[in-house]
Amino acid sequence: MKIAVDIMGGDRGIGNNVAGSLKALETLDIELVLVGRENDIALELESQSYDKSRLEIVNADEVITNEDEPAMAVRKKKNSSIVIGMNLLKEGKVDAFVSSGNTGALLSGGLLIVKRIKGIDRPALGVVYPNRRGPSFLLDVGANADCKPKYLQQFAVMGSIYSKEVLGVENPRTGIVNIGAEKEKGNELTKASFELLENTDSINFVGNVEAREIPDGEYDVLVCDGFTGNVILKLSEGLAMGIFSILKDKMKSSIKNKLGALLLKSGLYELKSSLDYSEYGGAALLGIKAPVIKAHGSSDEVAIMNAIRQAKLFVEYRVVDRIEENIALLGGDDSE
Amino acid sequence: MKIAVDIMGGDRGIGNNVAGSLKALETLDIELVLVGRENDIALELESQSYDKSRLEIVNADEVITNEDEPAMAVRKKKNSSIVIGMNLLKEGKVDAFVSSGNTGALLSGGLLIVKRIKGIDRPALGVVYPNRRGPSFLLDVGANADCKPKYLQQFAVMGSIYSKEVLGVENPRTGIVNIGAEKEKGNELTKASFELLENTDSINFVGNVEAREIPDGEYDVLVCDGFTGNVILKLSEGLAMGIFSILKDKMKSSIKNKLGALLLKSGLYELKSSLDYSEYGGAALLGIKAPVIKAHGSSDEVAIMNAIRQAKLFVEYRVVDRIEENIALLGGDDSE
Repeated sequence: MKIAVDIMGGDRGIGNNVAGSLKALETLDIELVLVGRENDIALELESQSYDKSRLEIVNADEVITNEDEPAMAVRKKKNSSIVIGMNLLKEGKVDAFVSSGNTGALLSGGLLIVKRIKGIDRPALGVVYPNRRGPSFLLDVGANADCKPKYLQQFAVMGSIYSKEVLGVENPRTGIVNIGAEKEKGNELTKASFELLENTDSINFVGNVEAREIPDGEYDVLVCDGFTGNVILKLSEGLAMGIFSILKDKMKSSIKNKLGALLLKSGLYELKSSLDYSEYGGAALLGIKAPVIKAHGSSDEVAIMNAIRQAKLFVEYRVVDRIEENIALLGGDDSE
Repeated sequence: MKIAVDIMGGDRGIGNNVAGSLKALETLDIELVLVGRENDIALELESQSYDKSRLEIVNADEVITNEDEPAMAVRKKKNSSIVIGMNLLKEGKVDAFVSSGNTGALLSGGLLIVKRIKGIDRPALGVVYPNRRGPSFLLDVGANADCKPKYLQQFAVMGSIYSKEVLGVENPRTGIVNIGAEKEKGNELTKASFELLENTDSINFVGNVEAREIPDGEYDVLVCDGFTGNVILKLSEGLAMGIFSILKDKMKSSIKNKLGALLLKSGLYELKSSLDYSEYGGAALLGIKAPVIKAHGSSDEVAIMNAIRQAKLFVEYRVVDRIEENIALLGGDDSE
């Protein structure tokens, strides 16, 4: 299996992304294609020891930054690492593509270059959301700010497949994120989506899920529009960080607390890592014809490695094929 | 000042609500009207000592439960504590009404009995959201699942007034909850609302606020549709509870952790109370012609007392008058 990695993406630079890739190469049975400025990558690799037979570099002179307008950038910057990576994927030269770059450009690249699976109206970004009982799968987390009920139905089907195949959940309990448990609660979108999901045979629909219940982890797949999902994801990050800083402040405030903190340190560290998104890799772009993983912009080496590991599972469990088969069963059309 | 309290609302029963009311009577310079089953209330009061000259009971035989369809219940159950409380408010016999009952029925009662302020399309529920730097004011948290841009504009004006008058924030920094900082980011609602809020002179609009930033507390007023606001509120509760249970589990797991926890206990307790919504009273129903506070359904005695204290501030700072004045400046019409 061959996975392309966008070395130009993210906030931490080329060195970080190369190091993360080498970590993945060391631990996983894969080949890697590093996409980016050839000379810079070669410079980073110079001092490293790694299995050269399983790594190649594909040059990409241009970079799509977070300031670029996504669709425009994908059209104009033909030599960017994102466009070149997507083309490698489309042409079957690699099996998956991992990038921590501009999310919008990845979505546009997925739509314009790799293209949608027949029957999918809108690809979605899904993430593994860590919680007390283990991971849930949440989608969409930002690809589609405004949604129609049939998009949510497709998200539910795709999310169920991902949960089953990649996360190993049998018959994943699938719910709609909503502001009330009853069928008639919610906004226009969730009310209409409930009707549709209730009548979707290929999923195990369990109804509405209130946001308060999400951290309990009783549900395996949570579907929502991309606005709501992004708010959930970002707020969770912000709150976890916020609670840790308050805790840190409190710990500093007295000798007694300091001592307590020292004793509790390993427990707190464990807690932090169980809430840490980087442990779970990145967001899966579902609904296009090949596997793409969007790693967090602030991904460190470990997060890059985990995103590559996630891409490997995405390929291994043939998620794209499974989506194609299951979406065909919905019998919708491909029109927008 | 006279405040009516719905004694039949909430999950904890009449005894809890009477006890919370008496706590408020003891600490605040107010008169109270307890609305509910007279005999039951009298029985609860029998064994208590309190200033009888400042407390009266108004009988209400019926109860609107959480299972009742809100608008229907308000129309049919004329002798319910919510309808009687709203009528006392409308007739000017009390200055404010506090209830931990059915949220939908309170909204319906507010609309049908107390009625909207001229120029307000949709009343909103606003809550004080605790965070690191002090409270922010978040609205709407559930009154309007689907919103139009002009509703968000009105929420911004009402929220700014509440922040200024009740929370004492000078020139409150007001933002739209969104999934990106830039003006062109977001869903159709937030994009159109940005345009409107940018051109609203009576508020200090500071742009879009990503959910990740909310717990930092850099913003004083956060506006969003009621679906998003409800998700934010409920997820925050769920996450805070979740993190505490994980922490508790960890603490139990070894003697070292137990000792650490003991030493940290006061620090953790402080943290918990700074994240505790019950400390801040309830949700303010803004946009109707008189002050209504919706207390959390699970309100204990202290939360009931705090909701009554919040109602007192709502009256004292003449929030309703301020909203009337400022909404008139927007120059919108009253049509739906």
